[in-house]
Amino acid sequence: MPKAGKIHAVILAGGAGERFWPASRAKHPKPLLEVVDGQSLLDATAARARRFASKGCVWVVCGADHAAAIRRSTGLPPSRVLVEPMRRNTAMAVALAAQRIATADPEGVMAVLPADHRIPDVKRFASEIKRAAVAAAAAGVLVTLGVEPTRADTGYGYINIGRAAGADHPGLSHVRRFIEKPNAAAARRYLKHGGYLWNAGIFVFSARTILEEIEACEPALFKALAPLKKAGKRLTKAALLAAYRKAPSMPIDVAVMERSKKVWTLPVSFHWSDVGTWQSLAEELGVTDGLSKVVEGDLAHDDIGGNLVWTTNHGGHARTVALLGVEGLAVIDTGDVLLVARLDRAADVRDIVKKLKANGRANVT
Amino acid sequence: MPKAGKIHAVILAGGAGERFWPASRAKHPKPLLEVVDGQSLLDATAARARRFASKGCVWVVCGADHAAAIRRSTGLPPSRVLVEPMRRNTAMAVALAAQRIATADPEGVMAVLPADHRIPDVKRFASEIKRAAVAAAAAGVLVTLGVEPTRADTGYGYINIGRAAGADHPGLSHVRRFIEKPNAAAARRYLKHGGYLWNAGIFVFSARTILEEIEACEPALFKALAPLKKAGKRLTKAALLAAYRKAPSMPIDVAVMERSKKVWTLPVSFHWSDVGTWQSLAEELGVTDGLSKVVEGDLAHDDIGGNLVWTTNHGGHARTVALLGVEGLAVIDTGDVLLVARLDRAADVRDIVKKLKANGRANVT
Repeated sequence: MPKAGKIHAVILAGGAGERFWPASRAKHPKPLLEVVDGQSLLDATAARARRFASKGCVWVVCGADHAAAIRRSTGLPPSRVLVEPMRRNTAMAVALAAQRIATADPEGVMAVLPADHRIPDVKRFASEIKRAAVAAAAAGVLVTLGVEPTRADTGYGYINIGRAAGADHPGLSHVRRFIEKPNAAAARRYLKHGGYLWNAGIFVFSARTILEEIEACEPALFKALAPLKKAGKRLTKAALLAAYRKAPSMPIDVAVMERSKKVWTLPVSFHWSDVGTWQSLAEELGVTDGLSKVVEGDLAHDDIGGNLVWTTNHGGHARTVALLGVEGLAVIDTGDVLLVARLDRAADVRDIVKKLKANGRANVT
Repeated sequence: MPKAGKIHAVILAGGAGERFWPASRAKHPKPLLEVVDGQSLLDATAARARRFASKGCVWVVCGADHAAAIRRSTGLPPSRVLVEPMRRNTAMAVALAAQRIATADPEGVMAVLPADHRIPDVKRFASEIKRAAVAAAAAGVLVTLGVEPTRADTGYGYINIGRAAGADHPGLSHVRRFIEKPNAAAARRYLKHGGYLWNAGIFVFSARTILEEIEACEPALFKALAPLKKAGKRLTKAALLAAYRKAPSMPIDVAVMERSKKVWTLPVSFHWSDVGTWQSLAEELGVTDGLSKVVEGDLAHDDIGGNLVWTTNHGGHARTVALLGVEGLAVIDTGDVLLVARLDRAADVRDIVKKLKANGRANVT
């Protein structure tokens, strides 16, 4: 059995986090926000990465708008902050990182980590990533981490577990199929019957294998990488632009994971959240009936509870907030923008952002 | 029948408007706010007063904190802005004004107007005041305006109409009794049976009559006026302070109106609101199911409606507000303070202010 190469962490920080509006903005997106644990989600992700990747093996893929802030925040050298010249969704981001890693470390294995997840148990996380990396390198497969569901959540996609990967890889299984966000009845069934995992969007594979599978599953994407290969170790802006102009815009799930025959899953049971909405942040922070939580601000009155409050400073002082007779609300105040939303409607925040953009209100998006 | 003397308007601007928090603050109370019709409630009241009172016959009673702003806003000379050295409720405010008017114009009739009411039909208002003034002067009575109720409101006190005042004073009646804010069943009964009016707190009487009735009904208050009488036309701060130190703190309703045998009421049917709470302002502005109203601010999204929004500027720009999945809320943002309250709980805003004061949070009250 061949040994795994070095493990590289590839942090995907290209998302806009629109459902986190108005705190998450085009110029200061969700991964850069200190929403929980007193650090930004990006910094927490980078710290997690360092549990299994050496300093020289941490990469970030992001947009030009945020590259400076991300370099400052993570301390990464410019060569490992891969700046996308335009947004092309995660397939191209993964392909770019795979191409760079294959050039630098042909035997390299990469763990793809979205920049906006919360996983408090960093030790277990790192050990599972290492386990997945061994399997990915040995078997030449794409491993996706599947989180054991703890509730019938309709906000996540699911992975249906297939047959076991074999005695050499205990715990790992083939993936029977990926399932889009289910309705409530289906989610309850998945939880009850077992054999279904949350698709966390955390992938582990060797750079070589993912490039092969990109070629097999989405040839247009593979072809778009040609200017990057030609550029070799010295990546130029022109090569990047040429590649991105040709690249199809699609998620890596759709481009490869759902099509490839070489996909395994590793079930994990550590606490994981994608902190995708104000509702999921409220859950992460422990908001329940009767109990409110404050990210920032001075909650001076709240007679019912169950609310999430985040207000920025005003003239150097914490803004005072009073809630009267309300529950289950997100109250998010960035100074220029105030959002008051039912937590159970939090997924629709994205629609507000789309509407504002459509109305030429870029100053508040 | 003796003719009425000049009619003086006495605007009571000493209230704190705590139920209008956080817009209404100790330093900038409700009468000074431009909540409706594009002018402050005080300026609107002063404009109404000028419909029946000559320029030299408009008086304001207020606290020291607001005297400068009130003089600036109304253009009144210092001699007619009566500054209370401490808060002693409305009985002493009326007594002070009566004493000053009796000194300046012994035959003077005074109309007492709270500074925070909204009465759009100024013509009908002025004609009813004049009618009340004629009766008050002729019969030596205290006339209280009673507003014909249009709904079973539990937020107002009621006046139960007694026997008619007689052929000389058509439309006026004796008051059988004053009724505190009723419960919902009683309010519905009052509306159905008739003979009940909302107690608007607008009173008309000659300065002489009210001083006589103060002496008869609340002698301690009458005695407290001695230093003012002694000071004569030239009111000194020392005399004011001496008077206020002795004065009992009570509403004029309790001190005199509910005790005097000389109280008449004049039923009126113009639109009247005391704009006492965020809920009553919402009603004044036309907030209904599905329809929100904005006093100030940029309401960029509101999918349900039925909300009242008032947000101050941020860095010179209107604050953008988005409401998602909420209805029946008051969203009031003064920059340093944010209140999100159910409109039907608006009366409880006062309790928040009390709590903040008790906690030494004067900076936000």
